[in-house]
Amino acid sequence: MPAPAALLSYIDAQTDAFITRLAEAVAIPSISGDPAYRDRVHDMSNWLNAQLQAVGVTTKQVDLGTHVMDGQTLHLPPAILGRIGEDKSKKTVLIYGHFDVQPASKSDGWDTEPFVLTKEADGRLVGRGSSDDKGPVLGWVNVLQWHHETQTPLPVNIVFCFEGMEENGSEGLDDLVVKEKDGWFKDVDCVCISDNYWLNTRTPALTYGLRGLVYFKINVSGPTRDLHSGVFGRMVHEPMTDLISLMSRLVDSAGNILVPGVDDMVSVADNEERAIYEKLDYSIEDVESSVGAKIALSADKTQVLMGRMRSPSLSLHGIEGAFSGPGAKTVIPAKVAGKFSIRLVPPQTPDSVTPLVEAYLKSEFAKLGSKNSLHVELLHDGKPWVADYKHWNYNAAIKATEAIYSQKPDLTREGGSIPVTLTFAETLGVNVLLLPMGRGDDGAHSTNEKLDTSNFIKGTKLLGTYLYEVGEVKDS
Amino acid sequence: MPAPAALLSYIDAQTDAFITRLAEAVAIPSISGDPAYRDRVHDMSNWLNAQLQAVGVTTKQVDLGTHVMDGQTLHLPPAILGRIGEDKSKKTVLIYGHFDVQPASKSDGWDTEPFVLTKEADGRLVGRGSSDDKGPVLGWVNVLQWHHETQTPLPVNIVFCFEGMEENGSEGLDDLVVKEKDGWFKDVDCVCISDNYWLNTRTPALTYGLRGLVYFKINVSGPTRDLHSGVFGRMVHEPMTDLISLMSRLVDSAGNILVPGVDDMVSVADNEERAIYEKLDYSIEDVESSVGAKIALSADKTQVLMGRMRSPSLSLHGIEGAFSGPGAKTVIPAKVAGKFSIRLVPPQTPDSVTPLVEAYLKSEFAKLGSKNSLHVELLHDGKPWVADYKHWNYNAAIKATEAIYSQKPDLTREGGSIPVTLTFAETLGVNVLLLPMGRGDDGAHSTNEKLDTSNFIKGTKLLGTYLYEVGEVKDS
Repeated sequence: MPAPAALLSYIDAQTDAFITRLAEAVAIPSISGDPAYRDRVHDMSNWLNAQLQAVGVTTKQVDLGTHVMDGQTLHLPPAILGRIGEDKSKKTVLIYGHFDVQPASKSDGWDTEPFVLTKEADGRLVGRGSSDDKGPVLGWVNVLQWHHETQTPLPVNIVFCFEGMEENGSEGLDDLVVKEKDGWFKDVDCVCISDNYWLNTRTPALTYGLRGLVYFKINVSGPTRDLHSGVFGRMVHEPMTDLISLMSRLVDSAGNILVPGVDDMVSVADNEERAIYEKLDYSIEDVESSVGAKIALSADKTQVLMGRMRSPSLSLHGIEGAFSGPGAKTVIPAKVAGKFSIRLVPPQTPDSVTPLVEAYLKSEFAKLGSKNSLHVELLHDGKPWVADYKHWNYNAAIKATEAIYSQKPDLTREGGSIPVTLTFAETLGVNVLLLPMGRGDDGAHSTNEKLDTSNFIKGTKLLGTYLYEVGEVKDS
Repeated sequence: MPAPAALLSYIDAQTDAFITRLAEAVAIPSISGDPAYRDRVHDMSNWLNAQLQAVGVTTKQVDLGTHVMDGQTLHLPPAILGRIGEDKSKKTVLIYGHFDVQPASKSDGWDTEPFVLTKEADGRLVGRGSSDDKGPVLGWVNVLQWHHETQTPLPVNIVFCFEGMEENGSEGLDDLVVKEKDGWFKDVDCVCISDNYWLNTRTPALTYGLRGLVYFKINVSGPTRDLHSGVFGRMVHEPMTDLISLMSRLVDSAGNILVPGVDDMVSVADNEERAIYEKLDYSIEDVESSVGAKIALSADKTQVLMGRMRSPSLSLHGIEGAFSGPGAKTVIPAKVAGKFSIRLVPPQTPDSVTPLVEAYLKSEFAKLGSKNSLHVELLHDGKPWVADYKHWNYNAAIKATEAIYSQKPDLTREGGSIPVTLTFAETLGVNVLLLPMGRGDDGAHSTNEKLDTSNFIKGTKLLGTYLYEVGEVKDS
C-alpha cells in the first residue's frame, strides 16, 4: 500500500521546519568517544526523548550503568526505548538509530563550524551528525509527526531503540537487547535501521551485509618522562621507533593485511559472486570523485567494490602521546599508543582475529630486541553480519524505493560496522534491513559531513512509505 | 683571580630574590615553535631587555624581520644585543643565551603547571625554561646586579647576545652575527654559552662539542578530506600506511640509522678515543636513573656515551594530521606529516646528509607503489661543532669550577644542538666555551623540567668567577 498522498505533501511542506529541528540536534555535540563531551550525549538523549514524546511515542530512558574509558569511570548515556501502537493485527517494526556522533573540530579542517548545521546553496546540510545518524533518526520523527497531528493510525506498530554509544562500541546495548528480548522487544517482526549510505550519489540502496570491527591500541612505553633527543638520542631504546616498526608490519600500501592468517580466513570470490558486484551502479570515478583524488587501489571496479564489501581492511588511525602539533619539537616521547582497526567479514569474528593480532604483535615486538614495554588493548569490537535479502522486509523496502525514487535500489554490502545489527538479528531471530537515507559522499566520520536536503526529505518519505509497505505484507 | 668574597656572599643572600625573578621569567610562555605563542616571545624579549638595563647594560633590541611557519608569516622576536664595559685593557667576553622555550602543557604529563615555577622541598625549581635557558641567562644578570649595586667595575668587558628563536632553528641569528662581526661583536676575545647540562648529577662539566641537527617533515597526502575507514578501507591508498612504512625505514630499535651512508660517514673510535669516554664520571645507572627505566641501548658505558657524544642519532618525534586524541576514532586521515630529526657529528653536515635523506625517502616511497603524494621538507638544520679545549678560555672555566665546586670538571661533548655556537666560532674566529649550569637530569624539552636551587646559586657564582679568571689571562 502506498503511503497516503497527504503524508507525502506534508513532508514537502514541512521541509524548513524539519531542517530547523535537525539543526537543533546537530548543535548538541554528543561525541561518545571523548570523555569531555559525555554530558552532551546525556543532553542529546534527553532532547530526543522529548521529541519522541511530542509525537505520541511512549518512551523510557534506560540507565546502562558505567564504563571505563581512558582510565575514567563514566556514566553511559541512557538509551531510549519507545513504543507506538499495540494493534495485534499489525506487524511490529523495531527501529534502531543512534544519537551520538564522531569527534569533530574546526581545526580538523572543517570549512564551517561542525556543530552548526549550515545549509549550502546546493541544498547540502553540513554538520557533524547530519547524516550519521541524526538526520535519519529525525526522518522517523518527521513521519510520526504527521500521524500524530492528523490522528492517523500508523500501518504498523513501532518499537524504537535509540542509543548514544554507537560511535564507541555500543557499550551496554547488547545487554539491553538480550534483557528486553521478551519484554520491550517481544512480538517484533522485523528490524529497520537507517544508518548507512548509498553506494554512489545516484542510486538508492538497501544493504544486507556489514563488516565487523576490532579496534586496537598498541601501547609502547619506556622512560618515565619525555626526553630531549639531543641528550638521549642513541643512548636509549625509543618507544616511537618500536611502535612505528610494529605499525609498519600490519598492512602494506596495497591494503594487504600482514597479520598472518587474517586475509586467509576469507575465501576468494568465484565468478558467480563477482557477478553480483559487477552489476552494481558504481565506477572507479565514483570512488575517486568521492575521495577527491585518483588513489583507488585498483583500476578494476569489481575488485575495488569487493575490497569494501567482502574483504577485511586494516587502517592505521594515529598515535596518542607523540608530538602531533605544528612546528618542530625535538622530543623522544616517553609513552606512545598506536591506534588501528581491522574491518571483518564472515567468517571472521573478533574472537578468531584478536588472538592472531595479539600473538603477531608480541612476536614482532620480541624480534625488535627492545627493552621498552608493550601492552596491546582491544578497545572495542563487533562481528560482521549478512542478511537474507529475499525476505518480505526487503521486498517492502524495494517497493517503497520504487515508489519514491522510481528506480530499483542497489543491493549492497557495506564496509562499515553497526555492531548492534548482528545483536538484533541473533537475539531476536528476525530479519534486519538497512535502509539508508544519505549518499555515498556524505562524509560520515570525516570533515564537512553533510546530508543533502533532497535525501533528508525523500528519505523521510521513503521511511514512511516503507512502513505502509510492511503494513501490507500478508505472510509472516 | 678568584671572584670577590663579597660577590659570592651577596649571591647567597639574594637566593630568594633570584628565584622570584626566575619565576617571573618562567611565567612568560615564550614558546618559539608554536605560532599561537609568538607574541609571548616578544613579551619575553621586552622583559629581559628591561632586566639588563636595570643592571647597567646598554642594550638594543634588533628586529630580525619575518619568517614563514606552518603557512603563516610571523614576526621574529627581537634579539637583544647588550654591552657593559669599554676598557681596552680588559678582555671582551661574548655571552650568548636564549629566552624562548620548548612547548609545554599540563596535558603532556607535567605534575605542576609548566609556566608556574614551583619550588619543591628538595630545592628543585620546576618549570618550563627553568634550566633551558632562563636560569642560566638570569645567572649572568645576577652577577651583574652586585657589580651594579656596589659600583664595582667588571673584570672584563661583556657583550651580550640573547635570542628568542633557539628552540626553532635560531632563525635570523646567523645573519645578525655576520652583520655585527665588525660592529657590536668587534674586539670579542672569546665566547661563553651557558645552555647545556652536566653529564650526571654530581660533576660540573665544560663542553667542547655539540651535535648538529637536520629536522624533517615527511608529508604524505591522498584524499582531499578525512575518510571513514568502514566506507573506504581497502578501496584506496591510505596516507598513514605509506607514512608509517617510510618512518619505519629510518631507524631500527637498536638506534642504527637505516638511511644509507649516514652512519658510515663517521669513523669508528680507536682505542685512544675510547679512553676519553672511559674516563668520564658516568655509568649505565646514571642514564637509566635519569630516564627512569632500564632501557640503555648497551650495557657498556663507553658505548652509550659515544652514542650521545660522537655518533649521529635519529629520533621519530610524532605525526601531525593523524588521530592523536584519547579514545577510538575510525578515521583514514587525508594528509599526515611525520616529524623526525637526525643529530649530526663531524664530519657530517646538513649539506652532506640532507640529500641522502631526501633521495632515500623518495626511493623508498616509489617502492611502495602508492598513488598518494610525498613531499619532504627540511624544517631546520645546524652543523655540528668541536672546539679546542686547551684554550685559555677553557682554562679559566676549569679554574672557576675548581674554586666553586672544589673538583675538576668533566670535559664532555654534548648530544644536543646549539647551532649558533658554530656560527660564533666560524664567524668571529674565536674560541667558544660551553659552561653549563644545570644537571643531567634537568629534563630540558621534557615534562617537569627543573633546575636545582644549588645549581642556580652555585652556577651564578661559577659564571661570576669565570669572568674574574678570564680577567686574569695575560696572553691572548
